Amino acid sequence: MDPQRLEHDLIGDRHVPADSYYGIHTLRALENFPLSGVPISAHPELVVSLAEVKLACARANSSLGLLDSARAHVIMEAADEIRHGLLHEHFVVDVLQGGAGTSSNMNANEVIANRALELWGRMRGDYNHLSPNDHVNLGQSTNDVYPTAVKLALHAAVGGLLPAMGRLADTFADRGRAFADVVKLGRTQLQDAVPMTLGQEFAVFALTVRDDRDQLERAVGPLREVNVGGTAIGTGLNAASGYAAAAVNELADLTGVAVRPARDPIEATQGVGAFLQLASAFKCFAMRLSKICNDLRLLASGPQAGLAEIRLPALQAGSSIMPGKVNPVLPEAVNQVCFEVVGVEAAVALAGQSGQLQLNAFEPLMAHLLLTAANRLERACDLLAIRCVAGIEADAGRLRGYAEGSAALATALNPVLGYQRATEVAQRSVAERRPVREIALEGGLVSAAALGDLLDPMRLAGR
Amino acid sequence: MDPQRLEHDLIGDRHVPADSYYGIHTLRALENFPLSGVPISAHPELVVSLAEVKLACARANSSLGLLDSARAHVIMEAADEIRHGLLHEHFVVDVLQGGAGTSSNMNANEVIANRALELWGRMRGDYNHLSPNDHVNLGQSTNDVYPTAVKLALHAAVGGLLPAMGRLADTFADRGRAFADVVKLGRTQLQDAVPMTLGQEFAVFALTVRDDRDQLERAVGPLREVNVGGTAIGTGLNAASGYAAAAVNELADLTGVAVRPARDPIEATQGVGAFLQLASAFKCFAMRLSKICNDLRLLASGPQAGLAEIRLPALQAGSSIMPGKVNPVLPEAVNQVCFEVVGVEAAVALAGQSGQLQLNAFEPLMAHLLLTAANRLERACDLLAIRCVAGIEADAGRLRGYAEGSAALATALNPVLGYQRATEVAQRSVAERRPVREIALEGGLVSAAALGDLLDPMRLAGR
Amino acid sequence: MDPQRLEHDLIGDRHVPADSYYGIHTLRALENFPLSGVPISAHPELVVSLAEVKLACARANSSLGLLDSARAHVIMEAADEIRHGLLHEHFVVDVLQGGAGTSSNMNANEVIANRALELWGRMRGDYNHLSPNDHVNLGQSTNDVYPTAVKLALHAAVGGLLPAMGRLADTFADRGRAFADVVKLGRTQLQDAVPMTLGQEFAVFALTVRDDRDQLERAVGPLREVNVGGTAIGTGLNAASGYAAAAVNELADLTGVAVRPARDPIEATQGVGAFLQLASAFKCFAMRLSKICNDLRLLASGPQAGLAEIRLPALQAGSSIMPGKVNPVLPEAVNQVCFEVVGVEAAVALAGQSGQLQLNAFEPLMAHLLLTAANRLERACDLLAIRCVAGIEADAGRLRGYAEGSAALATALNPVLGYQRATEVAQRSVAERRPVREIALEGGLVSAAALGDLLDPMRLAGR
Amino acid sequence: MDPQRLEHDLIGDRHVPADSYYGIHTLRALENFPLSGVPISAHPELVVSLAEVKLACARANSSLGLLDSARAHVIMEAADEIRHGLLHEHFVVDVLQGGAGTSSNMNANEVIANRALELWGRMRGDYNHLSPNDHVNLGQSTNDVYPTAVKLALHAAVGGLLPAMGRLADTFADRGRAFADVVKLGRTQLQDAVPMTLGQEFAVFALTVRDDRDQLERAVGPLREVNVGGTAIGTGLNAASGYAAAAVNELADLTGVAVRPARDPIEATQGVGAFLQLASAFKCFAMRLSKICNDLRLLASGPQAGLAEIRLPALQAGSSIMPGKVNPVLPEAVNQVCFEVVGVEAAVALAGQSGQLQLNAFEPLMAHLLLTAANRLERACDLLAIRCVAGIEADAGRLRGYAEGSAALATALNPVLGYQRATEVAQRSVAERRPVREIALEGGLVSAAALGDLLDPMRLAGR
Repeated sequence: MDPQRLEHDLIGDRHVPADSYYGIHTLRALENFPLSGVPISAHPELVVSLAEVKLACARANSSLGLLDSARAHVIMEAADEIRHGLLHEHFVVDVLQGGAGTSSNMNANEVIANRALELWGRMRGDYNHLSPNDHVNLGQSTNDVYPTAVKLALHAAVGGLLPAMGRLADTFADRGRAFADVVKLGRTQLQDAVPMTLGQEFAVFALTVRDDRDQLERAVGPLREVNVGGTAIGTGLNAASGYAAAAVNELADLTGVAVRPARDPIEATQGVGAFLQLASAFKCFAMRLSKICNDLRLLASGPQAGLAEIRLPALQAGSSIMPGKVNPVLPEAVNQVCFEVVGVEAAVALAGQSGQLQLNAFEPLMAHLLLTAANRLERACDLLAIRCVAGIEADAGRLRGYAEGSAALATALNPVLGYQRATEVAQRSVAERRPVREIALEGGLVSAAALGDLLDPMRLAGR
Repeated sequence: MDPQRLEHDLIGDRHVPADSYYGIHTLRALENFPLSGVPISAHPELVVSLAEVKLACARANSSLGLLDSARAHVIMEAADEIRHGLLHEHFVVDVLQGGAGTSSNMNANEVIANRALELWGRMRGDYNHLSPNDHVNLGQSTNDVYPTAVKLALHAAVGGLLPAMGRLADTFADRGRAFADVVKLGRTQLQDAVPMTLGQEFAVFALTVRDDRDQLERAVGPLREVNVGGTAIGTGLNAASGYAAAAVNELADLTGVAVRPARDPIEATQGVGAFLQLASAFKCFAMRLSKICNDLRLLASGPQAGLAEIRLPALQAGSSIMPGKVNPVLPEAVNQVCFEVVGVEAAVALAGQSGQLQLNAFEPLMAHLLLTAANRLERACDLLAIRCVAGIEADAGRLRGYAEGSAALATALNPVLGYQRATEVAQRSVAERRPVREIALEGGLVSAAALGDLLDPMRLAGR
Repeated sequence: MDPQRLEHDLIGDRHVPADSYYGIHTLRALENFPLSGVPISAHPELVVSLAEVKLACARANSSLGLLDSARAHVIMEAADEIRHGLLHEHFVVDVLQGGAGTSSNMNANEVIANRALELWGRMRGDYNHLSPNDHVNLGQSTNDVYPTAVKLALHAAVGGLLPAMGRLADTFADRGRAFADVVKLGRTQLQDAVPMTLGQEFAVFALTVRDDRDQLERAVGPLREVNVGGTAIGTGLNAASGYAAAAVNELADLTGVAVRPARDPIEATQGVGAFLQLASAFKCFAMRLSKICNDLRLLASGPQAGLAEIRLPALQAGSSIMPGKVNPVLPEAVNQVCFEVVGVEAAVALAGQSGQLQLNAFEPLMAHLLLTAANRLERACDLLAIRCVAGIEADAGRLRGYAEGSAALATALNPVLGYQRATEVAQRSVAERRPVREIALEGGLVSAAALGDLLDPMRLAGR
Repeated sequence: MDPQRLEHDLIGDRHVPADSYYGIHTLRALENFPLSGVPISAHPELVVSLAEVKLACARANSSLGLLDSARAHVIMEAADEIRHGLLHEHFVVDVLQGGAGTSSNMNANEVIANRALELWGRMRGDYNHLSPNDHVNLGQSTNDVYPTAVKLALHAAVGGLLPAMGRLADTFADRGRAFADVVKLGRTQLQDAVPMTLGQEFAVFALTVRDDRDQLERAVGPLREVNVGGTAIGTGLNAASGYAAAAVNELADLTGVAVRPARDPIEATQGVGAFLQLASAFKCFAMRLSKICNDLRLLASGPQAGLAEIRLPALQAGSSIMPGKVNPVLPEAVNQVCFEVVGVEAAVALAGQSGQLQLNAFEPLMAHLLLTAANRLERACDLLAIRCVAGIEADAGRLRGYAEGSAALATALNPVLGYQRATEVAQRSVAERRPVREIALEGGLVSAAALGDLLDPMRLAGR
């Protein structure tokens, strides 16, 4: 048997290994885009969702009588195999590719066509019997298949991230409950402010992550609006009447995701609002998670010459030269994930703005970066929760000492002394390194009993 | 009368002009922050909302018996005057200021105190009778007053932007209806694609702007969650029981905005999620509006050596050297507003990430930039709608010519010829510069009648 | 006398106030771009440099015999008046404008023409005698005049910033010398590391700012490459032979800046590399200055519950509620300037990328933002140096205490104990809250004499 | 033989496979940072440069008598093997890691120690004889080793990019020469402007890339300033006198790169200016290369309903539905690489700004992203040059038609007619769709002979 088969496209003829599932279109893409070295199979969600779209379209074509049952059967079987992960290694085109996803779509069309031919008992490459374009891609265009698949892939990836965010929030909340009675000094602008509890501080972290989770969930909605059936530019050219609706229904059925037809398929073909919103939600979370990591690192600074209010679990030796040093390596790693995500948003936004007229040619980059960001953030949340936050301990003595010794307690004297005289008490407390309580008492400004109440830390913390 | 009065703060004494409404705190801020030269009065929404917060707090203090009626009365009167724009020129501190808004808050406290003293028939500076801190700022901290005021100011500014976006969307939709029957060639990746109508193209612009309007509206919600009553760090220290709820109620009553108390005032004191989300929504809109402006400029390119599909209203001579040249100056101006807004988001996000522990010290920058962005986008929308979009005309002949002459019409032959043979028709059409119709006919590939139907532009446009 | 005069352009006729220096082109721009409300006169450097370019061109035209001496004389006199600041208030077009600077150029052409007519004893608006286009703009196009003027304006603005950076670096270096013998503990990853001096820490700040100054200076070079004489697209159409060279020479002569003709005027007309590089240099400096401000705020955190290693000068009361609180307001203000500059770079880069073919239409935004950034950074440097850094004091006792008590001193024992045993010493030091010296001695691990030498702070600091 | 060996660190004991080159520190990093799934061996430049630093330090230690010859010999041999690529698969820690590079450094220390032990004829893990910390890392800290290695790795990566940029520039220049006589119409603001040649247009692309190459080369300089010998924070603690200088010399000798000792090793330990400048240079190039790709795509738009001035080589079928469509896939792919690089700069800048006090903990992210960007840009340049630019062809007829038919030619009549009358000619040319030449002649405005000269395209193009 000839080890090669000849394939043809508008550029000319090319040999492809006879046993290759992919064909000439994929081959040319491999030659054109040796850019990142990362194949699209690095995003299994995307390969699966491409297969789901192909399967849904084949079902729709079949049910509308546009595709005969023999071909429909084997196409659906091949697509189903891909859905279940059997042929991922044949999705070889680079994640960075020109052509607005055409190479990814044709990679799918060719693998499905050749696997279907094989299932049919025919030779791979026998496109006269079953063609990647005329049969697998029937009623489809890259411009509706690819955005639809990318949206579903992101839906799945974010579907993994959201519960990880929930788990991280829960872990912060758990620690907050554990620290409910640990009094500490709050700080504004890094300067000593008034008392609170460490539990309150951790509850804020929990709420922040939970809010970002909710905001991200809202950004998922637009991913469910799909343009399959719109074909080349959204006008539905070459798609039969009823086909778009059928394809969307099949897709919802297959994936269990409540996908809905685009309100305006022309808009949905060129528009990338869903991707921009998702990138924004990632960035907002990254910025705020980064702030939390900064706070954790600051509160854990020390062990002797820092704030040293909390201790993070020791995970590894911190230094190749400084013995005994332990560093906040997990928050540092998560900070970096956050910074990387900020870069992702910058790139996605620019790609999104660069669309022209009826298409945005830069969706492959958006898909790659957003899928990467979702996966990275998911792992970051889980690592931070499990390996760091869950094991955080408080140095309650040090925390109480800060709270009770602070000149900022003079704030509580405002109502009885007025701001100006309270200022004098605070200034003396710092200058003379003596507690506010003592200075207030000695001036006879407030009675001991009143002070006991006024300066009670739990009262000051509003609890 | 002495032209100066002496005031005191923790740094020491300073003379202030006797007739100045502001006092020593404002004076020091003027000396410390001669940075942008732009006073906060450049944002009238912010001055008004500061006055509203002060007025609401005074009402709450009064109703709870924390502030006697004489002082309460004049404080409320002074704050009301500011609300109505009478004293804006006394809000002089720089929009760029350190101190997390303390200087803005103290500027308000001092102007109100001195105006209140004046209304009371007393001398300005007679703080023993009515103090900026003890009375005007009673139960308040910059850290609850300022974020609350900024949120209200942004609520007002976005309240102006949203209808402007609606008007722009409507104008696009109007033009879309006017162009409903104008056939044209769609383009993907800047290459000739399949037919559509110019009306469809403009309907996409309308939908895009409308979607962004809706997304921005969702970003307004978090602005209504306010932390007034939380005082220094959100624990409510020095705020009487019932005060926070009362102040929020008064604020809702005064402003007509459905403000609600923060779920966790400690979070709301340090958190800047509302600002980050707003910045994101601005950026998303800016990116997509910029894409629309790019498209308008591209479609209007020419008049002879460009696409020249539409004509923008001529607004001014385009060149100091090239006679007769008319440029798309309005879309260009709007592009620049969009780019500026992208910069705003970058700055706001970085400021937002830079908060530490119980406060974000960088809210003054966020306030300044977000207010600027909202106002700029509002004007950009209206100018674009009124001076440009509303007057756009189509070159229907040229548009139809492109549509009918295109080799891309071969796409419509796929169902009858298959992709491969349709490719040959398309390639010959380009190479021989002859219409698809002619080539298809001459090969006897399709009957004239079938072709008439297959290539009918309105059918191809899906209408 | 008629209070209005009639002017004409390609759109039609318009009345202009008879005594207005500007004419119909400026009027239309005022109507088209009511965007920021900021007139270009807010950038005096730009108005001056526009006048300089006009003056240089008039001189070149005159010397080449292209402009008669009567007209040349009054044009030069008018331009000279502008250079000296006499007519800035007539530069009224908005800093945000479409048209690639045409409105700024025409504003200059019209003011110069009308002032020249006046100097000539003629009526303003008598363009038959002296025309904004044919005489003032002779041999020029917006596309060569405007970029040249913007570059010169930026050259001047950066010329103010560079010495301010130098002064800030010097101030840090001064403080470094004052703190030369103040031992402290270095920190890596916010964890206690090995000893150094506070002088070394401040010397790093000085070097950082100085390096950024040098880098910015290198970014100034490309600003001196100007395309005046290239006219519309750089081909020099309508510019006489010898004119470009003459204009550049006159410009160098007038400004004292070593401007040189563009290597490729077509590139120089469309290229914005000089602006991108400048924006990058601003951003790099902003990022690093921001890090310095972060460090200052961290080192000054306290006064009791923070690191409290240094004290910044108290500049204003820090809180409207917390008496005695002093905040690091100057570093905070400078942080915000830095964040704003990061936004400027983002906007400029996007504007720069958005140029198309032979021109970048978005230079007005770049000019506005870059001039703003240069001025802001200049003021930030001076304020930080004078009002903050120069007055920083060290808490030498606290610093020494941190250094001598740290478990990290065990690092110095590596050479005698090996990393593993030194680790045990460090761990015991933290756990038992006892100094490394004591633990090392008691184990008989090292002799007292050797320890004295090994743990000598100044030796450890490498001094 | 026991399949596992027991290792110890400050956290406790762990088993490691007995035949593993890496040890407990690497093992913990694998468990702590399963973030990106990409091991540092994905950056061979970094593994090589780590080995080079280790080798240089061992040589320095040996020559100064700090390391005995037996250990020195095997350490150097092991490091040399890594340099030559023999052990890269044992560099397994994730590119995203906390700890400021400690895990990368310890991965290197452990692999070298165990391979050295093996070469010495001893068991892996026999650290009493040769320790990763005490011997391989002798006189070193992650904080000097890692930044030095990252700089060298980037030096190598940029060393590959620079000539690729040169080749791309040369290819543009070649095409420029080929198109030297092809007249076309220039465009400003996408509107028809005055004539030029296609050769001039391509020469600008060449110059742009060349300028960016030069700018990037300048950004390489700071990479040659290394802090090896500074140890933990740059003070050189535990490094013998003369060691730093010796190590730098050995490194220069080994690598052939003119590395030099840091001017201030404390600054060089914490400072990331070199990385920020490199990121900026990448971004500037990306922005300008993106503009070039945009222009190529625009000039190649069509084939019938676009500008269609040039034809890019057809590389693959452009559409799965539109037969015969060919898309500009290479410029599109390169656009995406450029957008990704813009994201890289955003992330690197944020990471750079986030350093604190004596160290920046986020260098691993910077290293990963900058190495990625350099490699990606290198491949993008070569692909664009070879597969696209080299094969670009002009449609000279269409280009000349645009040039000769344009109303913008009226610009050339300014000197004889004045701007106002030339405007009328231009307006009539557009309105009546007749050439400028004809209108000017018929009005008797200019003689035919004069017109022939005035409107000669090559003269207008300034050639």
